[in-house]
Amino acid sequence: MSEVYGVRRDRLRDQCAATGSVGALVSRPANVRYLAGGAPPGAVLLLGPGEDHLLCPRTPTGDPAYGRLDEQLRLTVLPTSAGDPAVAAGELARTVGVESLAVEEHHLTVARHRAVGSVAPRLRLADLGLAVEHQRLVKDEEEIACLRIAAEITDQALGELLESILVGRTERHLALELERRLVDHGADGPAFPTSVATGPNSGRGGHRPTDRRVEEGDFLAVCVGANYRGYLCEIGRTFVIGTTPADWQIELYDIVFTAQRAARESLSPGAAYRDVDHAARQILDSAGHGEGLPPLTGHGVGLEIDEEPQLAPAAMGKLDACVPVTVEPGVHLPGRGGVRIDDTLVVRQVADGGPELLTITTKELLAL
Amino acid sequence: MSEVYGVRRDRLRDQCAATGSVGALVSRPANVRYLAGGAPPGAVLLLGPGEDHLLCPRTPTGDPAYGRLDEQLRLTVLPTSAGDPAVAAGELARTVGVESLAVEEHHLTVARHRAVGSVAPRLRLADLGLAVEHQRLVKDEEEIACLRIAAEITDQALGELLESILVGRTERHLALELERRLVDHGADGPAFPTSVATGPNSGRGGHRPTDRRVEEGDFLAVCVGANYRGYLCEIGRTFVIGTTPADWQIELYDIVFTAQRAARESLSPGAAYRDVDHAARQILDSAGHGEGLPPLTGHGVGLEIDEEPQLAPAAMGKLDACVPVTVEPGVHLPGRGGVRIDDTLVVRQVADGGPELLTITTKELLAL
Repeated sequence: MSEVYGVRRDRLRDQCAATGSVGALVSRPANVRYLAGGAPPGAVLLLGPGEDHLLCPRTPTGDPAYGRLDEQLRLTVLPTSAGDPAVAAGELARTVGVESLAVEEHHLTVARHRAVGSVAPRLRLADLGLAVEHQRLVKDEEEIACLRIAAEITDQALGELLESILVGRTERHLALELERRLVDHGADGPAFPTSVATGPNSGRGGHRPTDRRVEEGDFLAVCVGANYRGYLCEIGRTFVIGTTPADWQIELYDIVFTAQRAARESLSPGAAYRDVDHAARQILDSAGHGEGLPPLTGHGVGLEIDEEPQLAPAAMGKLDACVPVTVEPGVHLPGRGGVRIDDTLVVRQVADGGPELLTITTKELLAL
Repeated sequence: MSEVYGVRRDRLRDQCAATGSVGALVSRPANVRYLAGGAPPGAVLLLGPGEDHLLCPRTPTGDPAYGRLDEQLRLTVLPTSAGDPAVAAGELARTVGVESLAVEEHHLTVARHRAVGSVAPRLRLADLGLAVEHQRLVKDEEEIACLRIAAEITDQALGELLESILVGRTERHLALELERRLVDHGADGPAFPTSVATGPNSGRGGHRPTDRRVEEGDFLAVCVGANYRGYLCEIGRTFVIGTTPADWQIELYDIVFTAQRAARESLSPGAAYRDVDHAARQILDSAGHGEGLPPLTGHGVGLEIDEEPQLAPAAMGKLDACVPVTVEPGVHLPGRGGVRIDDTLVVRQVADGGPELLTITTKELLAL
């Protein structure tokens, strides 16, 4: 397992060499984790022509924040003294004779960038761009295995919640209970702040739980996901509280369900991002819900909950096999509520059985 | 209440004018919140010579993320189309004829900075530096009232936990229960990830809860805080599990308690940051615990949990009245565990009764 990080770093090293940079300074936490196998808060990774260094801030107890990396990883862990590890990396790059260093300009602040430059004035700073993010796009089977476990945990937590009494409980409490259950089942934590939306709040993307209590007749929309070994998944389901859903609820649910299924079925290697989005969007649109739709139908997941690609109308690019994405259309009717249905899936070849659904909780409209 | 944000912005506007900038682009979320009364994710604040604008990303439902601000605030809320609100702010600055715009170089990434510059090539970009952070240092009584409520909530949650059975429960579960209790008592959420450390883990700053279970004879160290209306406080206490603490536990506790009290008592307007740190550090040092001490004894709290000032050996500056800080020395003995005691206090004049202790849970060594 540890070998994989060295392979990833070599791939990046080759890419940097091809663009004329001898070294790379990786500061974005998910990218550091991807290349080093772990990222203590504030750590940065310096890829040199030979040896690589993980520069960690000292922890309050005086130890480097990270002690797990070892020679196997072909990575030297350096605790840095007080100050910014990125600046220490700049000094180190100068010391080992790196002439051109590619940095993550989309992550490094202007002030940090200047500080790196000022400790090594003869070092040419280039832009690494999204090189690591692009490398992270296609997942290997170990990464997908982590996502699969994250999804199993999430399905379990959600399943247990559905068996409990819901009426009268607040959105906040349901969200906290879900997060506790994720941890019960082995998650390292929630992948993102759990969203529980009831009644008129339901169907809003990213709704933050309030003190509103679940009432008979409500839509209840939940969006939750587990973090398992750094890999993050997402599931969203909408239920009806009470015995019989109202006609408008059944109708709206059917539309969103149909749109979500269409987008799921369009997931295949070679499919354009925008075509997946379009598959869902056109169904919502022709049902008269075109206005106020979310700007995207889904997005990549992995070490971050919202990573590339974006499944959106103007997105450029095509899906590859082994890219995990969410498919999460939703409709919100102001004042009434709405429906979101959200799955995490892995794009697979048709010969391999087509898209692999990781979040398997039923998508029937359950009346709870 | 809404008037206060306009006053804060005018103060910043005057400061910018004095340094030659006509506009300011504030992007750091806590700074946006401080100046606008709220900060939807991704929103930026543009201070112009006259009107101010809060530029918000569109939410998935098509509404601007923030609908609460109104004319009272003398602030125009602009939903931006797809893209970076900071870039939209650059365009707007150009449109309204701003010539020099101060930006937060310690927050804006190199890539965003370049994007702002490229939509408005004739706009001179200057550095706002830590102007807003410095303005946030001294709190008004409304801010302190929020911190006081946050501390009350935290004391309640901790008090309830102490009344429950602890032996056999895991660090993770105790942490989750504390966070649930914070919300029960009206918190908007935890101020930071709750730390529960047992046995050999106790006394480590920033310990993340594990699956280790509480055992008889353990030290149990808890660090928790509530978020109330955006204001964040912190309390840390260490307990002994079982009937009678061991001698080494009593001894270590006494040393840390004495150090914490000395630092608390040294809090007064005009006291140098480093002298407060020194008051605690010298006691731990002369008791033989000088090595491996945390780099700081405390820090400011407010809209962020770790803000200025830092109470550390090399910190420059002096305390003012109405600055809330933590005082949190700790000692960790590798393999055995340790003690941390952490309070949130507000610096006050002696005539006003001296430092105001917000977190009032007892600091006796309780055997639970």
